[in-house]
Amino acid sequence: MPEPFREDDLLAYIRDQSRMLGPRVRTGPGDDLAVLDFHGHGLLVGVDQVIEGVHFSKGTAPELVGRKAVVRNISDVAGMAARPLAMVASCVLPPDVSPEFARRLVDAVRRTALQFNAPLVGGDTALHRGPGPLTVSVTVLAEPVSQAMHPVLRSGGHANDRLFVTGSLGGSLLPDGTGKHLDFEPRLDEAEALHATLGGELHAMMDLSDGLARDAARLAEASGLQAVIDVAALPCNPGCGWREAMCDGEDYELLLAVGGTRAVPAVVGRGRTRISQVGVLRAMPLPNAPRVVCMLSDVELSLDGAAGFHDATRVFEAR
Amino acid sequence: MPEPFREDDLLAYIRDQSRMLGPRVRTGPGDDLAVLDFHGHGLLVGVDQVIEGVHFSKGTAPELVGRKAVVRNISDVAGMAARPLAMVASCVLPPDVSPEFARRLVDAVRRTALQFNAPLVGGDTALHRGPGPLTVSVTVLAEPVSQAMHPVLRSGGHANDRLFVTGSLGGSLLPDGTGKHLDFEPRLDEAEALHATLGGELHAMMDLSDGLARDAARLAEASGLQAVIDVAALPCNPGCGWREAMCDGEDYELLLAVGGTRAVPAVVGRGRTRISQVGVLRAMPLPNAPRVVCMLSDVELSLDGAAGFHDATRVFEAR
Repeated sequence: MPEPFREDDLLAYIRDQSRMLGPRVRTGPGDDLAVLDFHGHGLLVGVDQVIEGVHFSKGTAPELVGRKAVVRNISDVAGMAARPLAMVASCVLPPDVSPEFARRLVDAVRRTALQFNAPLVGGDTALHRGPGPLTVSVTVLAEPVSQAMHPVLRSGGHANDRLFVTGSLGGSLLPDGTGKHLDFEPRLDEAEALHATLGGELHAMMDLSDGLARDAARLAEASGLQAVIDVAALPCNPGCGWREAMCDGEDYELLLAVGGTRAVPAVVGRGRTRISQVGVLRAMPLPNAPRVVCMLSDVELSLDGAAGFHDATRVFEAR
Repeated sequence: MPEPFREDDLLAYIRDQSRMLGPRVRTGPGDDLAVLDFHGHGLLVGVDQVIEGVHFSKGTAPELVGRKAVVRNISDVAGMAARPLAMVASCVLPPDVSPEFARRLVDAVRRTALQFNAPLVGGDTALHRGPGPLTVSVTVLAEPVSQAMHPVLRSGGHANDRLFVTGSLGGSLLPDGTGKHLDFEPRLDEAEALHATLGGELHAMMDLSDGLARDAARLAEASGLQAVIDVAALPCNPGCGWREAMCDGEDYELLLAVGGTRAVPAVVGRGRTRISQVGVLRAMPLPNAPRVVCMLSDVELSLDGAAGFHDATRVFEAR
């Protein structure tokens, strides 16, 4: 049987091959955004795409598709505690697309981008020649909130850091859900407030797009540590238990590692978003230990962050 | 009959809607790349994609697909007389892709990007859930060669400027051609040499991706002028006449508008690439005059830059 394609393998391969990036790359592939040195100033850049049948279902209004393409990227900016600067977008449209649909899609991208002070400054559009899904790829440029405030990476976690999440988790993609994945508010304001409040004790941060199980594993791995999640402490959305909170994905909340004993506010930002402690980082007990373990009624469950979890991105397939 | 989708209409719409981009946008959508002001430094950004069935045929080696995705963007950097800084890429892969194919594709993008000093610093990959073409979207960041050398825009042309092209035109996409569209050399070195030699007399420049007819119309429109092309002077590739040189597209040569009587070198750059005068810019004779006219044996042919020309991007469809 041929080896199946696994996105995580490919991403690991890209990271491994990216050692020699030159003096102007401060942080290469593997974080929410890369960080470049542009004439002494930090410049952040990253790309994220939405694809019909994967990130939204066929028939979704172009306003929601365009908005989601933008806010996924704004959520990455929040994950770095940075501020958006500009965007470019490319899209591939079905061959029978109407000019009206295309304009509504472009308007949604443009307006949502402006709403986050990231003007859409360039784009490329093309038509599929045969069958193919609507695809929108957005690249965001961003910068630190001030040049004295460095972006917060995934790799800065220390042993004994406490892990927190914003908001609540689970159910974003479920067919009977509220469709939060299409109209969530990226935690830009919350990230900036947390960065200002916690300062250097905000050791690591990222946005949660693939579910806490996978994403906590990524933060732990980048930091060379293991994440221990207390599933009883997870802030779950209505109708969701800890499995959904760990695995559903598309939450677009923040995961942060905070050092020392610094008090973390219970709510943060203009929207008074709840902050919940969900676990800790610790040294790897064994070299090949899983990057994430769950504490459930004093039993430690080993999870490798992906295996054994249903893949939230497949929900659409079943429709 | 419903209105058909036209890419140029959508691009014009995007330009029209992009007036309010804020003080950090020096040049918005509509040129090869946008120009931002980043702490007083010019920062260029643009996106371009390649799609199976549109920009390459099914079965093309991943090395050629990845390379083309990158060099299309490098050609845009050349069109601005700028220098590449970094890249990010997103791709959508067919559901049955092999890990080996994906790695070869990523390697081609990464290596080609590094070859042009534009390290690949970020990416996103996803699998189609159903039928769909391989798609690679690349965003390039670039900067002026020096901060004293501003990027060269499409909009800087003056009446009576002479129009020149690098290299030779036509046949790049033809099924019996040499496949130049898959392995062309972007004119980065030539653009820098022309900029250094011509200085402020290099009024306008762009790269030729959609054929001289369409692209000269774009430069003329951006400059508020009309382009007059002397078809007898066109440097045609073997097997091509003036129609192919005007319309085939995917030449990835440079089109430049040079002011005054400044001598333009016959060859330029390390590769001693030929430079040919192909026409002039002049004031619009009437408000609704076409943006491009061709002089053919003293007869002036009116072309609107798109209508009446076969669309080079459709060649693959016929295969």
